[in-house]
Amino acid sequence: MNQIAPSPRSRVVRVGDRGHYDAATLHAILDAGYVCHVAFVHDGQPMVIPTAYWREADHLYIHGSTKSRMAMALATGIPASVAVTLLDGLVLARSAFHHSMNYRSVVAMGVFEKIPDEHKMAALEAFTERVAPGRWADIRAPNRQEMKGTMVLRMPLDEASAKIRSGPPKDDAEDMAIPAWAGVLPFTQGFAMPVPDPQLGAGVALPDYLRTLTSR
Amino acid sequence: MNQIAPSPRSRVVRVGDRGHYDAATLHAILDAGYVCHVAFVHDGQPMVIPTAYWREADHLYIHGSTKSRMAMALATGIPASVAVTLLDGLVLARSAFHHSMNYRSVVAMGVFEKIPDEHKMAALEAFTERVAPGRWADIRAPNRQEMKGTMVLRMPLDEASAKIRSGPPKDDAEDMAIPAWAGVLPFTQGFAMPVPDPQLGAGVALPDYLRTLTSR
Repeated sequence: MNQIAPSPRSRVVRVGDRGHYDAATLHAILDAGYVCHVAFVHDGQPMVIPTAYWREADHLYIHGSTKSRMAMALATGIPASVAVTLLDGLVLARSAFHHSMNYRSVVAMGVFEKIPDEHKMAALEAFTERVAPGRWADIRAPNRQEMKGTMVLRMPLDEASAKIRSGPPKDDAEDMAIPAWAGVLPFTQGFAMPVPDPQLGAGVALPDYLRTLTSR
Repeated sequence: MNQIAPSPRSRVVRVGDRGHYDAATLHAILDAGYVCHVAFVHDGQPMVIPTAYWREADHLYIHGSTKSRMAMALATGIPASVAVTLLDGLVLARSAFHHSMNYRSVVAMGVFEKIPDEHKMAALEAFTERVAPGRWADIRAPNRQEMKGTMVLRMPLDEASAKIRSGPPKDDAEDMAIPAWAGVLPFTQGFAMPVPDPQLGAGVALPDYLRTLTSR
C-alpha cells in the first residue's frame, strides 16, 4: 500500500488540500498516537468509543475483553469507522473566522475481523512492543485464561485518509493591519517522570526502554 | 443537571466502577479538552470525525462550515454520539494482561440541533473565550458573509457518562514478586512557547491571556 485511492467516502472534501492518501503519511500519524475512536452502530444508535490501538503493516488493531459490547459487536463484521487525531496547536488569527487548529488526523472506514486464536499472542506482543519496545521480555505473558478472555480485532487500512493542518494563520489581506497577536500556540504531548508502583520491589530499577520514552 | 441517571445505553458496563454520571465530573473532563470525536451514520456507513468543541451549561457545542457533510447531516437531527478522551498515562504492570492506560473520557449520545442565527455570534464568542479568555476583544468579529457560512450545533448532555482510570497498576497477588518495573508513565499535554506569525506586525506583543495559557 503506497497510495490509497480516495473513495467517495474517504476523500477529504472540506479544505481538500489538507487531504493525504499515501501510506507513509497515514502510518506516521497512526504510529504517533495511543488512543483511537471507533464508531459503529449498536441497536440503531451510532456509538463512538475510545480505545487503545496499534498498527501492523496495513491493518489497525484493537483489543478488548471478549465480554465488551464493542468487541462483540465489531466481531460480527458490522461497518465501522476509526479516527486517530493528534492536536498540534491552536492557530490564532486576526479575525475570529480564521482561528483554527493545527492537527494530524486519520479517518478509516471498513470492517473489523477477529484475528485467529493462534495469532493472538504475537499480536499482543506486537502491541506491547509498539508502546514500550523491550517490555515484553520483562513481563509475564498472558496465561490461557487471560488469552481466552481477550479478543484482538483488526481493520484493513484500505479506505482511509489523513487530514493535516500546519503552519501560521491565514488571515485575509484586509485584516493584516489589525494589531492582534497572531501565530500558533504549539500543543505538546509527552511523558513525564515515571511514577513507580507504591508496591514496587526494592532494587527494581527503571529499565532503559522506559527512560527513553520519557525523554523523547 | 447534577446527576444524570445512566440509561441502558450510557451505563458503563465493562469495569463498571470506572463509570461516573455526575455533572461536575463530566464538565471537568469536557472543559479540559479541545477536540471531540463525533459519530453519526451517513449513507449507511458509521462515520467518526474529529472536531473542535466547547461546553456551555448542559450542552456540547461544535461548529463548522454550512457546506460540511457532517454539519449538514447532523443538522437534520439524526442520532449521534460524541466522545472526548484525555490520555493521562501508560500503566505498566508485571503481567501483560494488567497493562492499561490512565484516562478520563466522556461519551454522550443524542441529537444535535442547529442553534438559531441570532444566537450564533454569542456562541462563537463563548467558544473563543473558552479557548483563550480575553481573545474576543482583540480580534475582528465574524462579518455577515462569514456568519452565513458558519453553522453552530449543540447536543444536550442528558445521556452521557464519564469513564476514568487512575492510579498504579493492579497486578495479581501471585505476580507481585516478578522483578519487572511497574508503575505509571504520566502522559502530559500543554502548550509550548508561542510561535508568532512570520507576518506579525512589529510591536505587537504577546498578550497576557496567551502567556497564561502557555505556562499552565
